[in-house]
Amino acid sequence: MNNSKKSKNLLTNEIIDIPKNLDDSQEIENFLSINKDKKVVVVQGLGFVGAVMSLVCANAFDEEYAVIGIDLPSEDSYWKIKSINDGIFPLIAEDPKINSFYDKAKQKGNLYATYDSIAYKYADVIIVDINLDVEKKSSDDFSLKDFDVNLNSFKNAIKSIGKNCKEDVLVLVETTVPPGTCKKIVQPILEHELKKRDLSTELYSLGHSYERVMPGPEYIDSIREYPRVYSGINEESAKDVEEFLKTIIDMNKCELTKLKHTNATEMAKVLENSYRATNIAFAVEWSRYAEEAGVDLYSIVNAIRVRNTHSNLMYPGIGVGGYCLTKDPLLASWSRTSMFEAKNHLDMSIKSVSINDQMPRYAFKRLMDIFGDLKSKSILFLGVSYRGDVGDTRFTPVEGLYKLIKSSGASIELHDPFISHWHEQNISPENDLDNSLKSEFDLIIISTGHSIYKENDTINKLLSLDSLKIYDTIGLLSHEQIETLSKKHEISVLGRGDL
Amino acid sequence: MNNSKKSKNLLTNEIIDIPKNLDDSQEIENFLSINKDKKVVVVQGLGFVGAVMSLVCANAFDEEYAVIGIDLPSEDSYWKIKSINDGIFPLIAEDPKINSFYDKAKQKGNLYATYDSIAYKYADVIIVDINLDVEKKSSDDFSLKDFDVNLNSFKNAIKSIGKNCKEDVLVLVETTVPPGTCKKIVQPILEHELKKRDLSTELYSLGHSYERVMPGPEYIDSIREYPRVYSGINEESAKDVEEFLKTIIDMNKCELTKLKHTNATEMAKVLENSYRATNIAFAVEWSRYAEEAGVDLYSIVNAIRVRNTHSNLMYPGIGVGGYCLTKDPLLASWSRTSMFEAKNHLDMSIKSVSINDQMPRYAFKRLMDIFGDLKSKSILFLGVSYRGDVGDTRFTPVEGLYKLIKSSGASIELHDPFISHWHEQNISPENDLDNSLKSEFDLIIISTGHSIYKENDTINKLLSLDSLKIYDTIGLLSHEQIETLSKKHEISVLGRGDL
Repeated sequence: MNNSKKSKNLLTNEIIDIPKNLDDSQEIENFLSINKDKKVVVVQGLGFVGAVMSLVCANAFDEEYAVIGIDLPSEDSYWKIKSINDGIFPLIAEDPKINSFYDKAKQKGNLYATYDSIAYKYADVIIVDINLDVEKKSSDDFSLKDFDVNLNSFKNAIKSIGKNCKEDVLVLVETTVPPGTCKKIVQPILEHELKKRDLSTELYSLGHSYERVMPGPEYIDSIREYPRVYSGINEESAKDVEEFLKTIIDMNKCELTKLKHTNATEMAKVLENSYRATNIAFAVEWSRYAEEAGVDLYSIVNAIRVRNTHSNLMYPGIGVGGYCLTKDPLLASWSRTSMFEAKNHLDMSIKSVSINDQMPRYAFKRLMDIFGDLKSKSILFLGVSYRGDVGDTRFTPVEGLYKLIKSSGASIELHDPFISHWHEQNISPENDLDNSLKSEFDLIIISTGHSIYKENDTINKLLSLDSLKIYDTIGLLSHEQIETLSKKHEISVLGRGDL
Repeated sequence: MNNSKKSKNLLTNEIIDIPKNLDDSQEIENFLSINKDKKVVVVQGLGFVGAVMSLVCANAFDEEYAVIGIDLPSEDSYWKIKSINDGIFPLIAEDPKINSFYDKAKQKGNLYATYDSIAYKYADVIIVDINLDVEKKSSDDFSLKDFDVNLNSFKNAIKSIGKNCKEDVLVLVETTVPPGTCKKIVQPILEHELKKRDLSTELYSLGHSYERVMPGPEYIDSIREYPRVYSGINEESAKDVEEFLKTIIDMNKCELTKLKHTNATEMAKVLENSYRATNIAFAVEWSRYAEEAGVDLYSIVNAIRVRNTHSNLMYPGIGVGGYCLTKDPLLASWSRTSMFEAKNHLDMSIKSVSINDQMPRYAFKRLMDIFGDLKSKSILFLGVSYRGDVGDTRFTPVEGLYKLIKSSGASIELHDPFISHWHEQNISPENDLDNSLKSEFDLIIISTGHSIYKENDTINKLLSLDSLKIYDTIGLLSHEQIETLSKKHEISVLGRGDL
């Protein structure tokens, strides 16, 4: 009997054994021996940011780094480590640069992945790209009941750096953290561990700079060519961060802005995302009101967007998904009360999350109001991702709507050109739209804004189907397309009343 | 003894008698006899919008209108009627076009003002520009406890139109109303009154189009050259509204956008303002948090604004003032539950008003935290208006701060170059900065963003004063100015921590 722990490769679905012997020091030394005289960059965390950050560092501008990606030998992460070393990058990439950057790194031999924290010992630069999650508790109506932030695994990750790193390392935190974390959590842990090893606490550098990465067709450029904010815990740290960033960021295309304190850059990141979440929640609330008042919120938004001050007013939709906007406002509020002992929460930001979280349930209720009981109806979802033209299902709002409809007794088919397997629901969507449309449905729900669904070809395919109902939850269809489709089908659009 | 009611001219402070005989029909007929063959436009309401709208109509592009402004013979309004007819426009105008438009109208003799609702009898077009207020109840901490909308005076105003108007009149509502008002309030009242007079209800037109007027140096252009949204209760009404608007709006400089329903244009207006109020409330909450975390929110906002999606992120400040942003979110929520019987309020929008309303109290608390007890301190406020370079004190957030400081036992002087008399507090600010700075103060509060306060000349004057404290509540001072002033004075800026 094989008792070893397993990890499932999410690209191939292959099940692989996690090694019991976690000593990878020999391989690391081999890797470094063929990358002599290169500065060593260790990227902690091989998720959506860290994996791609490793590629960016392995293809730096004016510097040749030896890059080691490190993650835990866990069910979720081990397969990524193995995949990187086996020659297959562990992400389905809509951005062709991902594969070309990976190929270049393979040719140069300057990228290695490991689970062995001994790697930190060699690092000149350590980039922290691990997750820091919020634990949310929701009510039956999907509203936010309570939330908490547990820093333990983040602290452990920093501890493993402190236990191994050189005394003059640069630690650059990229993780979205509760403001105050670098100063109040990371710095004390690092110094405590350095002291325990009788090393100086005067030589290391610590800074914070957040990415604005956007998975999708410009994944790499969203790291390399997007303006950045950075800070250090002191002047030397800030200088070291700046020097390092200049080797991986295209300084001809974007600027670096230094802020005075790590609290400030940490706050900038969660503020950015909280602002976006707030603007979405605003649109969400008004979309329900627009439906009640019988008006088309899309035409109102278009009329208002002519004002510069209002140009970023959002369209309605079934809420917000992805890793950041669903939690960062809560991270911020948690920091305010827990790190800075404020009496007041960030009420607006918390409320935004709660309003956005409820949206799939509203969308479901509206669907029932318009189309009636869904029991034993056959339904096709167009799109599972949380965002158009991206294969990313993390916290997708489609999931809430899917679960509610499923529990109402309908039979559901899924289509998504970018998702081979929807892990959260353990189901594989159809990737080919023609195959999906071969079956007969009572209702088609447009749930993600993938470009393919807007194409004339798709509209024509929908027109060729027998009369059915269409529920556009994201305002994907244009006025003209709605008019065309209405001749045959019964269309309803979220946020669009019928007066 | 003179028992007649009085009205105080707010420009000259002259007290004038309101006539007892309210029959102005002879004067109106005289006015119309010298304006033969001109279409008659009656503007209902001579407030900040109606008064200027009268000028715009009297100086239309391709049409020569006879314009009658009408308001109530009340303490607040009668003096404006008299002033218009006496040759003095009843507004202090930072916009030179106000006076030149008024002079042209005087020369042409095509503008008259009255209190006699008989004027509606002659109108081809009636523009509704009266106020529609929200009654707010606040808690001791300035947060919003409750609010209500009373439509009675608005309904009476519409009734007075219906009792007098021609059966083929165009009624154009410009007032910011709770969405649903034209259809559910105005239309039934007009038709009821027309029927009572045995007139047809098939011939009149009714529409809605909101202004985006901005008192200040471009007052007139903010009406004539700014894009507009419009609607009618039916196709003919929408067409009539469009034709009329094309005679007063500069179609070379802006566009007209037709929406399908009066509910939609009404909603667009309150949505615009609610969005702005929400964005301000967002900044307000984070400014407190920034102070707690010791960081400078201004530099964070600047760093984030580089993103197109975040370019309208607001700076901190002492809250929001003016007639619109302080009430429109509540009008909208009231409409949602009262006009459309929704179960849910617009929680985000209500919360925004409450957060913004509390800001002056927060600013006061912060002031006490930093500078200590204010008892018997001498304090100068720089600015009373709710907005920079504008003479408008309606719902200015400065008032809350002023009242709290006053009640704490400080002695206060006020400066504002644009306010000769602050009616809400019945006090006259000094208009000349040099005069203000002749006295000695313990503390200067920068409370309004008038340009003059940023000028080098002003900074030098502040530098020449004996050492004192300066509290910038709106982030008016630049980094350089703060550095310069810090050499002599103790500076604190709202939303800017000190790490």
